[in-house]
Amino acid sequence: MYQSFTVKDIAKHVPSRLKILRKYLASIKLDGFIVPRSDVHQGEYVIERDERLSWLTGFTGSAGTAIILSQKAGLFVDGRYRAQVKSEVNQNDFEIVPFPHTTLSRWIKINTSPNSQIGFDPWLMSNIQISKIKKKLKGTDIKLTPLRRNPIDHIWHDQPKAKKTKAKIHPIEFAGESHQKKRERLALKLREIDAKAAVITLPDSIAWLLNIRGNDIPRNPVMQCFAILFDDAKIKLYVQKEKVSDITDHLGIDISILPPSSFIKTLKLFDEPILLDRDSVPYAVASACSQPIIKRDPCILPKARKNAVEISGAINAHTRDAVAMIEFLAWLDAHKHNILTEIDIVKKLEKERRKDPMLQDISFDTIAGTGANGAIVHYRVSTKTNSIIENGHLLVLDSGGQYIDGTTDVTRTIAIGDVTEEKRTSYTQVLKCMIAVSRLRWPKNLSGHDIESIGRFHLWQAHRDFDHGLGHGVGSYLNVHEGPQRLSRTSDIPLEPGMILSNEPGYYREGKYGIRIENLLVVEAALAPSDGDKHREMLCWRTLTLVPLERKLIQKDKLTSNEIKWLNEYHLEVNKKINNLVSLTAQQWLNKATAPI
Amino acid sequence: MYQSFTVKDIAKHVPSRLKILRKYLASIKLDGFIVPRSDVHQGEYVIERDERLSWLTGFTGSAGTAIILSQKAGLFVDGRYRAQVKSEVNQNDFEIVPFPHTTLSRWIKINTSPNSQIGFDPWLMSNIQISKIKKKLKGTDIKLTPLRRNPIDHIWHDQPKAKKTKAKIHPIEFAGESHQKKRERLALKLREIDAKAAVITLPDSIAWLLNIRGNDIPRNPVMQCFAILFDDAKIKLYVQKEKVSDITDHLGIDISILPPSSFIKTLKLFDEPILLDRDSVPYAVASACSQPIIKRDPCILPKARKNAVEISGAINAHTRDAVAMIEFLAWLDAHKHNILTEIDIVKKLEKERRKDPMLQDISFDTIAGTGANGAIVHYRVSTKTNSIIENGHLLVLDSGGQYIDGTTDVTRTIAIGDVTEEKRTSYTQVLKCMIAVSRLRWPKNLSGHDIESIGRFHLWQAHRDFDHGLGHGVGSYLNVHEGPQRLSRTSDIPLEPGMILSNEPGYYREGKYGIRIENLLVVEAALAPSDGDKHREMLCWRTLTLVPLERKLIQKDKLTSNEIKWLNEYHLEVNKKINNLVSLTAQQWLNKATAPI
Repeated sequence: MYQSFTVKDIAKHVPSRLKILRKYLASIKLDGFIVPRSDVHQGEYVIERDERLSWLTGFTGSAGTAIILSQKAGLFVDGRYRAQVKSEVNQNDFEIVPFPHTTLSRWIKINTSPNSQIGFDPWLMSNIQISKIKKKLKGTDIKLTPLRRNPIDHIWHDQPKAKKTKAKIHPIEFAGESHQKKRERLALKLREIDAKAAVITLPDSIAWLLNIRGNDIPRNPVMQCFAILFDDAKIKLYVQKEKVSDITDHLGIDISILPPSSFIKTLKLFDEPILLDRDSVPYAVASACSQPIIKRDPCILPKARKNAVEISGAINAHTRDAVAMIEFLAWLDAHKHNILTEIDIVKKLEKERRKDPMLQDISFDTIAGTGANGAIVHYRVSTKTNSIIENGHLLVLDSGGQYIDGTTDVTRTIAIGDVTEEKRTSYTQVLKCMIAVSRLRWPKNLSGHDIESIGRFHLWQAHRDFDHGLGHGVGSYLNVHEGPQRLSRTSDIPLEPGMILSNEPGYYREGKYGIRIENLLVVEAALAPSDGDKHREMLCWRTLTLVPLERKLIQKDKLTSNEIKWLNEYHLEVNKKINNLVSLTAQQWLNKATAPI
Repeated sequence: MYQSFTVKDIAKHVPSRLKILRKYLASIKLDGFIVPRSDVHQGEYVIERDERLSWLTGFTGSAGTAIILSQKAGLFVDGRYRAQVKSEVNQNDFEIVPFPHTTLSRWIKINTSPNSQIGFDPWLMSNIQISKIKKKLKGTDIKLTPLRRNPIDHIWHDQPKAKKTKAKIHPIEFAGESHQKKRERLALKLREIDAKAAVITLPDSIAWLLNIRGNDIPRNPVMQCFAILFDDAKIKLYVQKEKVSDITDHLGIDISILPPSSFIKTLKLFDEPILLDRDSVPYAVASACSQPIIKRDPCILPKARKNAVEISGAINAHTRDAVAMIEFLAWLDAHKHNILTEIDIVKKLEKERRKDPMLQDISFDTIAGTGANGAIVHYRVSTKTNSIIENGHLLVLDSGGQYIDGTTDVTRTIAIGDVTEEKRTSYTQVLKCMIAVSRLRWPKNLSGHDIESIGRFHLWQAHRDFDHGLGHGVGSYLNVHEGPQRLSRTSDIPLEPGMILSNEPGYYREGKYGIRIENLLVVEAALAPSDGDKHREMLCWRTLTLVPLERKLIQKDKLTSNEIKWLNEYHLEVNKKINNLVSLTAQQWLNKATAPI
């Protein structure tokens, strides 16, 4: 079992940990310290030893920052975690600060005295984060001080050690392009901008570039390491030797393996222009470079544009993932209500996925939220919160698999027994949003920002909305949240053919129920129909996910003929592709689930 | 008659004018000179003496820039004018440069030799324009030189003089707030940002602030002048005394009248922080200020948020404007085809509007484009292009009135006789876009960028689009194009209650036909329905325009029930509000035009 359901009761330790930390901060003459969620690679998932934020605060969300002052502490969380943070964190210990509405700099200004010294770990905070805070603190005497050693690591006596797992080859039949070709492509780009080298600190960039996968971090098949790519296509890879001992032939002579401790020393001695990623480069790395060119990590866009082999892998992975989902849904449908729990759901679904030998991990901890738990956007069931799937509930089930040939991420909302008309109305609104995006054709060069309101229109008309992005990029057997493309009001990255994104509108009634529907889609060039504007280059989607939508929740009379057409065609395609691959029971269920409405 | 239909044949003069200009530039040791469309106030409409760009190039569009080099000249125009510029400008004289795809700086870099000196008029180009070009030219030896006298003015011997028209009071019953209150409101804002004063160079800002209107520029009821607003709410107004001689009592003792020639001298002597508008302040003004605070002209947002009196004025003005439009449409419908011309249309429509004593001017030169002319987005009929309204044509009619109580702007596309099904299909797509925006409800704090794709979705689905913004802000008996709010991918200004915008999707088949439908809308707070999210603050529109939509062009079977409902309710409202105000003939026409579909 990949997923576990135990929770550490951190809350009871929080007051004493805070006290110890404050005492230590006072001893090193600091008035405050910033504790981000991130690790040195600025990734979304972190290993246990890097869970400093949750160790200190009890908050287990995937994004957040704490600031500890001598008398006060603030915990900054965004809209996705407003509900969760309340259940995990005692508000006597932390003021819950709504981010980004209130910025760190603003809160620091209000809550500290002039001349304050606020410490931060220069490896855990990015250059851009620190620059922004410093810029906003200009004109005050508040100082931000990079620390040599993280105070949490100093006081956390049983902090786990990092595991030394071995990297493996990501074969060319799934990668579609050799690492030599990738390196040469990027080296050319470096020469074009007169950069002598590029620092790569994002493990998924390195995994993509070298066609390797790792096992350091749960859910994300990457190896934690740093790399410098030079303009002659050679690479210095900073990693413990034993982690790459199985893949030295694959890496070849152009890749030198060096101890991580020499990484910063090399950068400090390097006196030529060097490219750094503006969004993620740690402050410590940026400070070490004498001639930084601050742009984008050169792997990010090529990685986001999946090649033909990767897309074909994604199609295959989604087909097999649909088999697991459909077997699961048929099993669930055959059960009486008021018996199964959320944990049963998660276990059974993982069991179905594990039947596929290509599965390497799940993409993320499955979200199985029934009833009111469904309204917690990033709900993760534990033995403490585990609830029974009751008649009348909506069950939000958001899950995915890491297969060798692709990463999946699918959400279905399932009606348990007899549900109210209100829930059907809400579901139909979300479905209309989801279909509007799925059917969309749009002009080339537009970003997620330019089109995302189309995935909210039908909820807005009902004076409703959801407080998360409409969609995120997805890797190719890599991170399930992969940038830079997103369907979000904050994303100005043009969508390009080959990019894979999720389309996941939702609706959440706090304390009552939640709804979310999610497919993965890949961007394709659209052909102009005979009466279209031939001169306009436009894009459209191909849907990857192949799992039926809950027909019991659809109010057919609220759908337009185009929406009904899309839905029936989608279900027809699902049936055609999956029917022969599932058990007889699942086949029977699938035929009913995909019959035209 | 406000509108005229004569065209000066400038084209034949262009080669000799270019030659004289080049000779003059050589004599003052310049390698090039930038000729923008703007005047010293950076407005969209300019007086005849400021029509330097069209005098030199023949191009009469409302936006464009020429750069004259010794051997070459470039004319930069945006998507709206691609078709028009081809018919007006000889491409032997000018390279037509697509803007903003190619920027001025890029073209200068490619087409001039190193060490070139390019001149510009520091009054006609804004500080931000020059900064951007300079920034892009960094690293080259190309120099931008502000000139004391505009070379065009030097060689343009019969350049018209500016008229000295008199300003008039904009009464409180239409303005809704005294100029003293407005000045006090803004002075408080200045004190908040520690600015001692603000320079106001936009005539519509001054007109709004002082509750005055002018007659210097056709179509825009403003007075050309400059102002400095101080943090004690007093104002120095730089204008010829005789222009304000009728309104001295209205202005009162807090407004001092000073000669325009002293404006720059005052600024040069002023050594305290002074607010300048980042988008429009001329380079000459910014250069004169020793302590500039570059933000937004403080009048712009308060002017954009119409108060209750202004909104009520807008409603009244739109009601009377609808009467003129409906009388006109009934008249047009009674005519045989193949007789009337575009000029007949423009004349008759202006005649109908002029029946209203509140009319002060038209909002802009009426666009009446029939057949292929309808595909020219900013078409302006002249005796040279005047076309007959033929059976089978679509007639695009875009017009508006400047009434004392409000500014209108309405576009209807009218089917002449029997039109093809293709045109009905296209019209219905545009109508669906227009209705989607009209029905829209959206969360507070969103900008035009955040929602504008909703006004394109239905065209995109047909692999179509239009190459202009979805909507612009509109003044209150002020400029018909008024910022900062817009429905555009480039506008990040949050929409707020009281803002008036146009909603004008279109479709254009070059050389064949055009379609545009435009209503003006005002932003309002939306009330949550009983099943809506009570905690979400959302906004919606109230439609101001009250003119029937062309039923002959609507394919009912392509509309959803919600769209049909919107249309029938709109027509019902139009009938209810206008029926009693029009002639018997128009009444009969209106009843048919607004019957439920």
